[in-house]
Amino acid sequence: MKTTVSIVGGSGYGGGELLRVLLAHPCVEVQQVTSRSHLGEYVYQIHPNLRKRTQLKFSEPAALEPADVLFLAQPHGQAQHHIEEYAKLAPKIIDLSSDFRLKDPAVYEKWYGEKHTAPEWLSKFVYGLPELHRAEMARANYVSGVGCNATASNLALLPLVKADLLDLSAPIYIEIKVGSSESGVEGNAGSHHAERANVIRTFSAFGHRHTAEVTQELGVHDVSLTMTAVDLVRGALATAHAKTKPGVTTKDLWKAYRAVANENLFLRIVKEQRGIYRVPEPKILAGTNYADLGFELDETNGHVIAICAIDNLMKGASGSAVQCMNLMMGWEETTGLEFIGLHPI
Amino acid sequence: MKTTVSIVGGSGYGGGELLRVLLAHPCVEVQQVTSRSHLGEYVYQIHPNLRKRTQLKFSEPAALEPADVLFLAQPHGQAQHHIEEYAKLAPKIIDLSSDFRLKDPAVYEKWYGEKHTAPEWLSKFVYGLPELHRAEMARANYVSGVGCNATASNLALLPLVKADLLDLSAPIYIEIKVGSSESGVEGNAGSHHAERANVIRTFSAFGHRHTAEVTQELGVHDVSLTMTAVDLVRGALATAHAKTKPGVTTKDLWKAYRAVANENLFLRIVKEQRGIYRVPEPKILAGTNYADLGFELDETNGHVIAICAIDNLMKGASGSAVQCMNLMMGWEETTGLEFIGLHPI
Amino acid sequence: MKTTVSIVGGSGYGGGELLRVLLAHPCVEVQQVTSRSHLGEYVYQIHPNLRKRTQLKFSEPAALEPADVLFLAQPHGQAQHHIEEYAKLAPKIIDLSSDFRLKDPAVYEKWYGEKHTAPEWLSKFVYGLPELHRAEMARANYVSGVGCNATASNLALLPLVKADLLDLSAPIYIEIKVGSSESGVEGNAGSHHAERANVIRTFSAFGHRHTAEVTQELGVHDVSLTMTAVDLVRGALATAHAKTKPGVTTKDLWKAYRAVANENLFLRIVKEQRGIYRVPEPKILAGTNYADLGFELDETNGHVIAICAIDNLMKGASGSAVQCMNLMMGWEETTGLEFIGLHPI
Amino acid sequence: MKTTVSIVGGSGYGGGELLRVLLAHPCVEVQQVTSRSHLGEYVYQIHPNLRKRTQLKFSEPAALEPADVLFLAQPHGQAQHHIEEYAKLAPKIIDLSSDFRLKDPAVYEKWYGEKHTAPEWLSKFVYGLPELHRAEMARANYVSGVGCNATASNLALLPLVKADLLDLSAPIYIEIKVGSSESGVEGNAGSHHAERANVIRTFSAFGHRHTAEVTQELGVHDVSLTMTAVDLVRGALATAHAKTKPGVTTKDLWKAYRAVANENLFLRIVKEQRGIYRVPEPKILAGTNYADLGFELDETNGHVIAICAIDNLMKGASGSAVQCMNLMMGWEETTGLEFIGLHPI
Repeated sequence: MKTTVSIVGGSGYGGGELLRVLLAHPCVEVQQVTSRSHLGEYVYQIHPNLRKRTQLKFSEPAALEPADVLFLAQPHGQAQHHIEEYAKLAPKIIDLSSDFRLKDPAVYEKWYGEKHTAPEWLSKFVYGLPELHRAEMARANYVSGVGCNATASNLALLPLVKADLLDLSAPIYIEIKVGSSESGVEGNAGSHHAERANVIRTFSAFGHRHTAEVTQELGVHDVSLTMTAVDLVRGALATAHAKTKPGVTTKDLWKAYRAVANENLFLRIVKEQRGIYRVPEPKILAGTNYADLGFELDETNGHVIAICAIDNLMKGASGSAVQCMNLMMGWEETTGLEFIGLHPI
Repeated sequence: MKTTVSIVGGSGYGGGELLRVLLAHPCVEVQQVTSRSHLGEYVYQIHPNLRKRTQLKFSEPAALEPADVLFLAQPHGQAQHHIEEYAKLAPKIIDLSSDFRLKDPAVYEKWYGEKHTAPEWLSKFVYGLPELHRAEMARANYVSGVGCNATASNLALLPLVKADLLDLSAPIYIEIKVGSSESGVEGNAGSHHAERANVIRTFSAFGHRHTAEVTQELGVHDVSLTMTAVDLVRGALATAHAKTKPGVTTKDLWKAYRAVANENLFLRIVKEQRGIYRVPEPKILAGTNYADLGFELDETNGHVIAICAIDNLMKGASGSAVQCMNLMMGWEETTGLEFIGLHPI
Repeated sequence: MKTTVSIVGGSGYGGGELLRVLLAHPCVEVQQVTSRSHLGEYVYQIHPNLRKRTQLKFSEPAALEPADVLFLAQPHGQAQHHIEEYAKLAPKIIDLSSDFRLKDPAVYEKWYGEKHTAPEWLSKFVYGLPELHRAEMARANYVSGVGCNATASNLALLPLVKADLLDLSAPIYIEIKVGSSESGVEGNAGSHHAERANVIRTFSAFGHRHTAEVTQELGVHDVSLTMTAVDLVRGALATAHAKTKPGVTTKDLWKAYRAVANENLFLRIVKEQRGIYRVPEPKILAGTNYADLGFELDETNGHVIAICAIDNLMKGASGSAVQCMNLMMGWEETTGLEFIGLHPI
Repeated sequence: MKTTVSIVGGSGYGGGELLRVLLAHPCVEVQQVTSRSHLGEYVYQIHPNLRKRTQLKFSEPAALEPADVLFLAQPHGQAQHHIEEYAKLAPKIIDLSSDFRLKDPAVYEKWYGEKHTAPEWLSKFVYGLPELHRAEMARANYVSGVGCNATASNLALLPLVKADLLDLSAPIYIEIKVGSSESGVEGNAGSHHAERANVIRTFSAFGHRHTAEVTQELGVHDVSLTMTAVDLVRGALATAHAKTKPGVTTKDLWKAYRAVANENLFLRIVKEQRGIYRVPEPKILAGTNYADLGFELDETNGHVIAICAIDNLMKGASGSAVQCMNLMMGWEETTGLEFIGLHPI
C-alpha cells in the first residue's frame, strides 16, 4: 500500500513542482492538494504539464485530512501559525517555507523582521539539506525546506568548508545569478516579460535573507550574497569568491570535491578542459535534483572561486524536499528524482 | 535479460535525446553509441546532462556489434548506403533520418534532389508515427523516423482528416514556428546566438521537405508548410488553416478530437476558457512525448484553425522512435516516455 | 521658436516611446506629459532610458495647458469622452488609441462591444497610416493612431492590393507573431516572465479587433488575423497567405513592391538570395520607423506569402504618429525618425 | 566639407556598429569600408540595419585610400603589422583592437602570449577611454580602443579610485556578466543558439586579458575579472566587490559618484529607491554610449559593491571610439552619440 501524501498550498511554483515529482513517485499517492485561490479547479489548469496525468482538484485547506506525510508549500510566515494543527494530521511534515529553517528565534526575527510565533518548534525541525543532515533525517519527523540561494551557496562551499581549506578571516562574496521563477508565481512589478526579459539586474547587493542559512549551516560569518536576475526561468548559479589557507593547492581542492561528490549522489563535479560544458550550468539541470559543482584556484594568491549550479525549484526547493522524504521514510534517496535533464534546452 | 540497443550516430541532438530516454528505459541496455567525430570521448562530454549516468564512450561505426535493436540517428542520406550492413547486425531497425520515410522513390527524388540508393528498402519500412501505424508496428522489423514539422502537421490535421471534416478542394496553409534545435548540432550561419536570438524569421515560405510526409500520410495534396524560426531551443507549433465541409460545427470538431485523444495516450486536447494555458504550447512539452492539440472554428465561413504543439526532439524525433520500439517489442507503449514535462520553464 | 507638444497619458509604452522620439525631435518642445498614476514622478523613473535627457515630471491631466500639438496616448475608450475638451486646448490632435480609427460607428460597436460616445468626431479624423493617407494629412487637424497588427497587415498587403494582383474571392489568412510589449505596460496574467518566456502561444485564432482596420483601409473582406505570442519584447511580423489573380508572376510582384517602396521612405523590400537576413525580421527594426516587406509566390497555384516586419511601438504606434505630425506640420516626413536600428540585437 | 573617414575591417560587429554611428554623424563622410571576406558585397547585406541608408560596398584592404580619420576594426593582432602603412594614409588613427592599449611591451607579451611587433608605437597611442584621457585626446593623433570588460570595470571603480576611497590592500573581485555579441561575429563552439540560449556560464574564472587594462589605467593590482555569459545579445554588467578605507560612508560615495557624473556626460548614476529600474542595467543602453553607475556600501564592514552597465559594442567599443574622434577633432563630445536608448526592450 502506498504512502499517502498531501500538499498544503499547491498552486505556487514550489507546490506544482512537488506535485510533478510526487505524481511519478512509485511509493506515494497524492491524496489532497489545497489552494484557497484556486479551490475546485483541476490542478492541471494551473500546472498545465499535469494534464492527462491527474484528475485531482484543489481542495479547501480547512478540509485537510490525515495523511502519512504532509508537505507545506505556502508563502513564508504561514506554516508557523498552523503547525500545531498540521502536526495532528500527519506524523511527518516537510515545510518548504522559511518558517522553520533557522534554529535561533532571534536570528529569525533579525532577518524576517518579526517575532516567530512558534519558537518552540524550531528545534524540532531538521534543516532540509540532505547533504548536510542525512543521518538526522532518517529519524526525523519534521524537516524544513531550504532557501534556493542558500542551497547553491552551501553546496558551492561545502567541499571547501568540510576539508577546512578556507581562510575564514577573509570575507566570502557570493555572486548569485537567478531565473525568474525565483520571484514566485505572483511575481512583482519587474516580472512583466517586457521588463524582465534581457535583464542583468543586481536586485540585492547585500542582506538577502538566505544569508542566514549559509551562516547557520556552514559556520561562516563574513559572507554576503549578491543577487543578480538574468534572462532564464529556472536555475541559479552561485559563484563564491573566497581565500584558501596558505599553501592550499588545486590538488587539495580536487581531493575535497571528489570526497563530497562520492558521498552524495546528486552532487557532480564539472571541470572539463574541452567541449562546450566545462563548468556547472543550471540550464541542463532543469527538472533534475542535481547540484553541479566546480572550482578554480589562483595558487599565486589563494583566490578560490567555487561554483554551484542548481534548478532552484528542484534541488533548491521541491527536489530536496522529496529527497528528505525518501530519507525520512527509509527509501532509496534517489526515488522519484531520477530525471536526467535535457540537452539542448 | 534486457534488450540490447545500439545507436549509430549518437553525437547529434536526436542521438543525444535517444540516449537520454534509453538510459532510463527499464527494458533496454544501451550497448554502443557510435560517432566518428567524437570517437573515444565520453558521451557525457557532448551530452552534459548524462554526466554521472553513464560511462559509455563513443565508438567507431566500423566496430558496431550485433544488437537486438539498432537506432540510426545519422544525418540524412547516409542510412540508405549502409542499410544492408545494418540489417545483418540487428533484426529490428529504427531509422530517425529521412531516408526511409517516403514510399515512392520518385517522390523521394523530387524532394531530396537525388536518386534513392536503396529503393527496394522503402516498402519494408513502416512510417514511424504510431498514431497512424500502430497496428503495423506490432509486426514490423523496420520503422522509419518522422519529420518533426511533418509530425506537428500530421497530428494537427489528424482528427479533421480522420473524421472527414475537411473540404479538400480548399488549400491548407500550415504555419510552423520552431526552435533552434531544429537546425541540428552543426547549425548554420544564422545559428550564432547574436543572430538567432530574438528572431521571428520566416526562413521557408514553401517547399519544405516535410511537406511530402504530410501528403503521403494524410492524403492531402494542396498543402503548404511555412516555417518561421522563433527564440526558443526546443519546440514546434503547427497552426493549420483549412476549410471544413459545409455545415460542420464546433461540436463535430470536439467529437473528432476526443475520439483521437481517447485512442492515443500521447495526444491531449488543450482548449480552455480560462487560465494562462488555454491552447497547445510547446514549452511545457520539453522532454515529453506529448502532442497537444487545439482547434478553433469560425462557423460563419468554415475557416478552421488546427494547432499541434510538440517537442521536436521528442514526439518529433526520438520520442516517437522509442514509442515505435515499444510497439515493435510488444511493450507498453509509454514505457520510458513517462516524463511529465516542466512548468514553469 | 519650437512647436509645443504635450502628451496625455505618458506612462504607458506608447507614451514612453513618443517621449523618446519627441525629446530628440529638432522642431518640437515637449511641454507636458500627464499621468494620473505617476503624478509628480520624474518621467525617467518610469522610462529609465530618459535619464539625464529630461527633468520633466508627470503632471495632472486636469492641469493640461494649451499646446500646438496634442498626442493622446491613453488606454482605449478614453479619448472619445474628452475629445471636446482636448480640441479646445490644441489645434492639432493625434490620438494613438483605437477611439477614432474606424469611420463607421456601427463597425466600432461591433468590434469594441459598446456604442461610440462621440460618433460625430469619427469623420473628422484621418486614419493615421501615412502610406495610405499622406495627402490628406497635410491638411488634417485630427489624425488617429493605428493598430500595430493592422499596420503590419496593411503594409504587407499594400503592394498587392494597390497593384490589384489579388484574387479577392479567396480568403486571406494573416499569421502575426508578436512580442510582449504588445500587451501593454500593465500586461496580463500570462505576462509574468516565467510564463511568457519561451512561448509560442496562439492567443487569438480569429476576431482580433485590428481586423476591422484592415477591412476598412484595404477593402478586403474575407480576411482573418491569427495572433501568436513569441519570446521577444518589441516587434511584430505579419505573414499573409493569399491567392493572386491567374497569370500573376513573381516579376509582377517585384514591380508592385518596388513601386510602393519607391514612394515610401520607411518601406524597404527585403528579399535576398544569401546571407543571414534574407527576409523581413522585426528584431533589427527596434526603435526604427521602418516597415520591411517581403514576398514569395508559388506560381504553380497562385499562393502568395506577403510579409511585413515592424517595431510595434514605432511604425505600429508612436513612430507612425510622429510621421503623421511631420506631415501635418509640413516638415520633412522623416524628421526625428532617422534612427537606423541595431545589429546585432 | 565633411571629414572623410574609412574603416579597415568593417564586417565584424565592432565595424558594423561604427558604420551605424558614422553614417548618421553630421561631421563625417564614410569613404571606404574594407573587408576581405565580403569583398564587393553591399555593407547592408552583412549589417542589415543599414539597408536603404547606404549603397557602400566592402572594398579591398589593399585599395585603401587616404582619409582624414582611419578606424581600425580588425581582429586583435593585425593592426600592429600594418600600422606604418596606415599612418601614411591618415593623420589620425583610432584602433579598436587590443594592439595598442597596453603601454608596456612586456605586459602585452604576458597577457597576449606573443611579442608585440611594433613596440615603438605603443607610447604614441592614447588609451581610448575619454573619461580617463580627455585632455590628451584633444592633441592626440593615435588613440587605441578599449576592452569592453575593462571599460565596465574601469568606470565602475573610477569614482572610488579618483576619490581615493578604496583600501587597496584588499583584493578587488569584479564579476562581469556579458551578452553573446562579445564573442564576435565568428563566435565559437558554444555560440550556437541551442547551446548559448538560457546560459549562466562562468567561462573565465580569472586571467581575462582585459584585466591588464584595469591595472594599467586605475593602478589597482590585486584585481580579478570573472566572466559569466548570460542570455542577452548586447550588454555587459560589471559588479565590483572591494573594501573601502575605514570610516568611509555612503555619503562619501554619493559625493564621489556625483563628481564623476557631473564631469562626464555619458556617465549616469542609477540608484533609486522605487520603481523597476533602481540599479544600472545594460538592456536599456543598447545602442547608446552611456555607462550607468551604481553602488552600495555595507558601512559595518566596508564592503562596497560598484556597478557599471554598458553596451559592449558602444561604450565598450565603437561608441567610445567615436567619442574619441570627436575629442580629437575638436567637435562636441556627444556628436553622433545622442541616441537615447529603448524601453521596453
